[in-house]
Amino acid sequence: MTVSRYWCELAWLGAGAATADVCVEVDGGRITGIHPGVPRPPDATRLDGLTMPGMANAHSHAFHRALRGRTQVGTGSFWTWRDQMYRFAAALTPDTYFDLARAVYAEMVLAGITSVGEFHYLHHAPGGVRYTDPNEMSRVLAAAAAAAGLRLTLLDTCYLHGGIGVAPNEVQRRFSDGTADAWAERVAAFDGGSPDVRVGAAIHSVRAVDPRAMTTVAEWAAAHDAPIHVHVSEQPAENEECLAEYGLTPTALLGEQGVLGARCTAVHATHLTAADVAMHGEHRCTICMCPTTERDLADGIGPARLLRDAGARISLGSDSHAVIDMFEEARAVELDERLASNQRGSHDAPSLLHAATADGQRSLGWAEAGVIEVGALADLVSVRLDSVRTAGSTAGSALASVVFAASAADVHHVVVGGRTVVAEGLHLSVDVAGSLARAIAQVSEEDV
Amino acid sequence: MTVSRYWCELAWLGAGAATADVCVEVDGGRITGIHPGVPRPPDATRLDGLTMPGMANAHSHAFHRALRGRTQVGTGSFWTWRDQMYRFAAALTPDTYFDLARAVYAEMVLAGITSVGEFHYLHHAPGGVRYTDPNEMSRVLAAAAAAAGLRLTLLDTCYLHGGIGVAPNEVQRRFSDGTADAWAERVAAFDGGSPDVRVGAAIHSVRAVDPRAMTTVAEWAAAHDAPIHVHVSEQPAENEECLAEYGLTPTALLGEQGVLGARCTAVHATHLTAADVAMHGEHRCTICMCPTTERDLADGIGPARLLRDAGARISLGSDSHAVIDMFEEARAVELDERLASNQRGSHDAPSLLHAATADGQRSLGWAEAGVIEVGALADLVSVRLDSVRTAGSTAGSALASVVFAASAADVHHVVVGGRTVVAEGLHLSVDVAGSLARAIAQVSEEDV
Repeated sequence: MTVSRYWCELAWLGAGAATADVCVEVDGGRITGIHPGVPRPPDATRLDGLTMPGMANAHSHAFHRALRGRTQVGTGSFWTWRDQMYRFAAALTPDTYFDLARAVYAEMVLAGITSVGEFHYLHHAPGGVRYTDPNEMSRVLAAAAAAAGLRLTLLDTCYLHGGIGVAPNEVQRRFSDGTADAWAERVAAFDGGSPDVRVGAAIHSVRAVDPRAMTTVAEWAAAHDAPIHVHVSEQPAENEECLAEYGLTPTALLGEQGVLGARCTAVHATHLTAADVAMHGEHRCTICMCPTTERDLADGIGPARLLRDAGARISLGSDSHAVIDMFEEARAVELDERLASNQRGSHDAPSLLHAATADGQRSLGWAEAGVIEVGALADLVSVRLDSVRTAGSTAGSALASVVFAASAADVHHVVVGGRTVVAEGLHLSVDVAGSLARAIAQVSEEDV
Repeated sequence: MTVSRYWCELAWLGAGAATADVCVEVDGGRITGIHPGVPRPPDATRLDGLTMPGMANAHSHAFHRALRGRTQVGTGSFWTWRDQMYRFAAALTPDTYFDLARAVYAEMVLAGITSVGEFHYLHHAPGGVRYTDPNEMSRVLAAAAAAAGLRLTLLDTCYLHGGIGVAPNEVQRRFSDGTADAWAERVAAFDGGSPDVRVGAAIHSVRAVDPRAMTTVAEWAAAHDAPIHVHVSEQPAENEECLAEYGLTPTALLGEQGVLGARCTAVHATHLTAADVAMHGEHRCTICMCPTTERDLADGIGPARLLRDAGARISLGSDSHAVIDMFEEARAVELDERLASNQRGSHDAPSLLHAATADGQRSLGWAEAGVIEVGALADLVSVRLDSVRTAGSTAGSALASVVFAASAADVHHVVVGGRTVVAEGLHLSVDVAGSLARAIAQVSEEDV
C-alpha cells in the first residue's frame, strides 16, 4: 500500500470546534498521520467544507425504503403501518432484496454513512421454507453492502413469536427459526465473508422472543463478544403486554434475562419509566434513537437527555428510511427534546455528532471507526459549507451549521476505510436514484 | 406578450393525486390554458417530476437567516435566543439589509417559494432615528424581493412597547413608531412601487401593541382590505402576562379588539385554550404554523388538527429560517402532531400542500396564486422525482413522496408570474450561496 493524503479545509477531530487546514495520511485503510494547520501538500486530495468521521446508521431495515411515500395515505397507527410493511416483506426474494439493499445502502453512503447496522429478520422463504443456504438472505445483504461500498454489521435477529404467546402469522414465518437454539445454529454458519462485515445478535422485541430465548441470544453475543440490539418500548402497547404477562417492563425483563450491558443497544426506548432509564444508564447501554421514524410512526419522544444523564450512550438510526439523512436524525434528537421540555440546548452539536459517529460505530462493533485519529479506520466524510443551506457558517459555527442546517445533499466526498466511494456528490459505482427506482418497482405490485 | 407553454410530466391540479402529461399555457403572467393527458407540444418547455403551484412562505423575518447555526451553542430559552437575535438587528443598515434580504429571498425561490410575507418591524435607524424616507427599510425589502424574483407582501408591523406597559429598549427603539397613528401615517406613505409588492398590516404581539393600538391597526387593514398578521401565544409567558394584565388570553384580547377575521393570520398559535381554538375557527382565521422554528425555539406543538376542525385554515412559514424548506415545514405539521397525539394521518399530503400553496398565498393577499387554474398567476414549481430522496415514487404516491421525503434541494424549476427564475436547480440571476456568505459576513462582528 502507498500513503494517500487528504487535506481538509476544516476537520472535526472530536473537540468542540473544527480545526483548520488538516492533512490526514492514510495507509492500508487506516489513518496513519494527522497534521493540523499545514498548507496543502501537492499530492493531497483537497476536501472542502467540514470533514468529519464516518457516520454509523445504527438501525436499518433496508427493505422499508420501498415504503417511502407509500404509507402516508389515510389515517392509522403504528400497527396499520406494520400491515403495509408486511406486504412488502412477503414479496421479497434474494434477488430483489439484493437489488433493493444495494441501492438503499448506496443512498446511505451518499449521505455520509460508512457503517450500517442491519436489523435483519427476513431470514427464510415464504411460509418459513429454508433456502438451500439458510443464510442466503444474510449473504445477500453482505453482498449488497460490499457493492454499495460501506461496512455492514449484520444484526441477525431472533424472531420466534407473533406476540407474547402467539404463533407467527403467515408473513412472520419468514422471520422465525423456530427456537433460539436453531437461530444460534444458523448464525454460527455465517461469518460475513469479508473484513467489512461483522455479525451481531438481535432480539426483535419482548413480543417476538420469550425470556428463555432472550438469554440464549445474550449468551451467544457474550461468547462472541458481539453487539446485541433489541427494540425496546417503542409503543405503549408493548409495555402493557409485557407488564400483563411478566409483571415487568420490557427493560426490566431484558435486565433480568442478562441482555443489558455495554454491548447492548436498546432501539427506540421511547416509553420508559424512571427505573428503566436508570437501568439503561447503570448497564452503560447504548440507546439507538430513530427520531425521523419515531415521528413517522407516531411513537413519541424518547427521554434522550435523561438517558445520557443516567450514563447511557446515544446512537442514531434511520430505521424505516422515511428519510435517510443523519443530520436530520441528529438534530431531531435535540429539536424533539426541545418540543417536549420547552428548553434549548440539552444536546449540543459536538455531542450529536458524537452519537452519529463514534458511539454509533461502537454500538455496531466498529470501535476503531467514527473518529479521525491515528490508528482509526480511514473514514472521511466531507460536507459542503457553501451550499444555500450552510452558507454563512464560519470555522466557529461549522459544527452547528452542519448538525442543525445541512442535509444529506451537502455531503460531497466520502472515504470508507481508505477507499473513495463518493466524489463531487456522486457515488462512483452505483447509479443510486436509478437503482432505487428499478429495485422498488420490482417489489411493488401496484401503483400505491 | 406571447403565449408560453410548459409540459408537465405530472402536475398537481388540486386533487388528491397528480395528473399526467399536462400542458399549461401562460400569457401575461397568468395561466390561460390547462390541457391534461396530451403529448408535449414541440414548443413547450418540459418540466420533469411533479409540478405544483407556487408556495407561499407566509412568515419571514429575513435577517434571522444570519443567525443560522450561530444560536445553537450552549443552553437557554426562547428569551436568550432573542437576545442573540437583537444583536444582529442592532447592526443592520439599509445597505447590508438589502444584500442579506436579496440573498435570503433568492434562497426561498430556489426552494419553490413564489411569495413571501415579511413580518417587518426593523423600521428605523439605531436609537429610533428616522431615515430620510421613513419607509427606507420597506423600500429595501421590496427591492430585495424584486432582485430575487419573487412577490412580497410587506407585513408592516406595529411594535410600540418592550412588553406590556414597558418602554422599548435600545434595540426595540428601531422598531417603534411611537403610536399606532404614527405607524398608520408611515404605512400610508408606502405603496410597494410594483405590482409584485403588496402591503399588509401586522401587530407584533399583545406584548408590543396595546389594545387601543391593535384596533387602530385592525381598522387600517379593514379599510385597505389588507391582510393582518399577529404573533399569538408562541410562549406560555406571553399568555401569563396577558392574562395577568387584561384577564384575557391573547386570542380573546385580539377578538375583543376586532383583529380576528378571515383577513387575519395568527402566527404560531401554539399554546391555546379550547376557547381560543374555537374563536380562531369561528372567525375563519388562518393559522401560520412555523414548525421548524417552533422546534428550534422550544415553543411546543400547536393544535393544528383541532384548529382545522374548528374552521381555521393553515398556512406555513419558515420564520427564523433555521432551515428554508417548505416540504420540511409541511410534513412537520403532521409529524409533530403524530408525536403529540400518537396517531398518524391528521393531515394528508394534499391538505399539507394546500397549506403550503393556496392557503398561504391567500393569507398574504395573493388569492389569485397558489393554484394551477386558468386565470391564476402563473407560478409553477417542479420537484424532482428521480433524486435519491424521491426515487421509487409513482404517479399515485408522488404527492406523498414530495411532502414526506423531498427536500428544497429537489426543486429544479421555478416560474413566478410567468417568469422563469430557477432552472436546473440554479437561480438565473443571483449567486445565492455566495451572496448569503458575503451578506452574512457583513453583519457578523466576530466569528461566532
